[in-house]
Amino acid sequence: MEESVRKYERVIMGIDPGTNVMGYGVLGVNGKKPEVIVMGVIQLSKFESHYKRLHRIFERVTGLVEQYLPDELAIEAPFFGKNVQSMLKLGRAQGVAMAAALSRDIPIAEYAPLSIKQSVTGTGSASKESVAEMLKRTLNIPPDHMPHLLDATDALAAALTHFYMTGRPPIGKGPKSWKDFIAKNPDKIAPRLR
Amino acid sequence: MEESVRKYERVIMGIDPGTNVMGYGVLGVNGKKPEVIVMGVIQLSKFESHYKRLHRIFERVTGLVEQYLPDELAIEAPFFGKNVQSMLKLGRAQGVAMAAALSRDIPIAEYAPLSIKQSVTGTGSASKESVAEMLKRTLNIPPDHMPHLLDATDALAAALTHFYMTGRPPIGKGPKSWKDFIAKNPDKIAPRLR
Repeated sequence: MEESVRKYERVIMGIDPGTNVMGYGVLGVNGKKPEVIVMGVIQLSKFESHYKRLHRIFERVTGLVEQYLPDELAIEAPFFGKNVQSMLKLGRAQGVAMAAALSRDIPIAEYAPLSIKQSVTGTGSASKESVAEMLKRTLNIPPDHMPHLLDATDALAAALTHFYMTGRPPIGKGPKSWKDFIAKNPDKIAPRLR
Repeated sequence: MEESVRKYERVIMGIDPGTNVMGYGVLGVNGKKPEVIVMGVIQLSKFESHYKRLHRIFERVTGLVEQYLPDELAIEAPFFGKNVQSMLKLGRAQGVAMAAALSRDIPIAEYAPLSIKQSVTGTGSASKESVAEMLKRTLNIPPDHMPHLLDATDALAAALTHFYMTGRPPIGKGPKSWKDFIAKNPDKIAPRLR
């Protein structure tokens, strides 16, 4: 466990799973204040084999879960794609990443790219650059800490969206707390079966 | 570890992943002779939540892997489906099942439904019933040991196909051994990264 994680009441991990690059971002929350703990990418394009990529995703996400002990996992999940082949591969990438969380009984929530853009920037059609810029301002990220790859900020945006949806709801709508969110969205939550 | 597994030189687990029912079948091999160790299904339709299903798949496949210690995993994997939504879900189901094998460094090989039918019955257009009937005869399965659900026999058929492809090649074609299969099909094999 990272020493840095102990000081947070709640840790949310965001993931943007792809078959070439997987982004991740971890938020630590105290009260109503979210802070960036870490963000980065898992490079997969260097592996030619699809299985090597899946293995790598499982290994790295398991490592991140062990290191940062997230209380919840938020996934950016497009529901439509170019074709069935690419969706099958994306589903597999999501599946192995989810398995790493499920094996530790960490609840998962997924958000469509449009919802993430909407809740972070206020505009569903925002570019990835605008999302990154808004995260930089909202979370006070120093310019030299901003990642080069937008997969990392996309993942962090998923985590922040989950925080907004569960910890700081928009006025007059949305659930009041994570507990409330669970009650209102039973189908969106991974179970604690054991 | 099951006592029954110790007597086999090689154990192949077959899986037919679905989002409603997941079939599994385990073959034990001595020399050129494959035998059924176990087959069955994992019922998923009783869980309404997609996550509960994924959790269940991961949990049960992990359990099967620990119990029967397969040397290889064969998956029945359609490459095309009705629509992108269903393929994403199928990909996730496959992904969590694969993660259970990948986490134990078990190599995975996947076969299209048509290849499985072809190698088990000689006909790519064979019905699931014909596949089950051929398995019964080939593997000398007593009638009262035949499962009610054809997902189980489909999974066993995937394991038998893998055995044929690696242990008892059709005359004049195909790889000579699992080692040879790996050499000829590097992209089909999950890595032993560690």
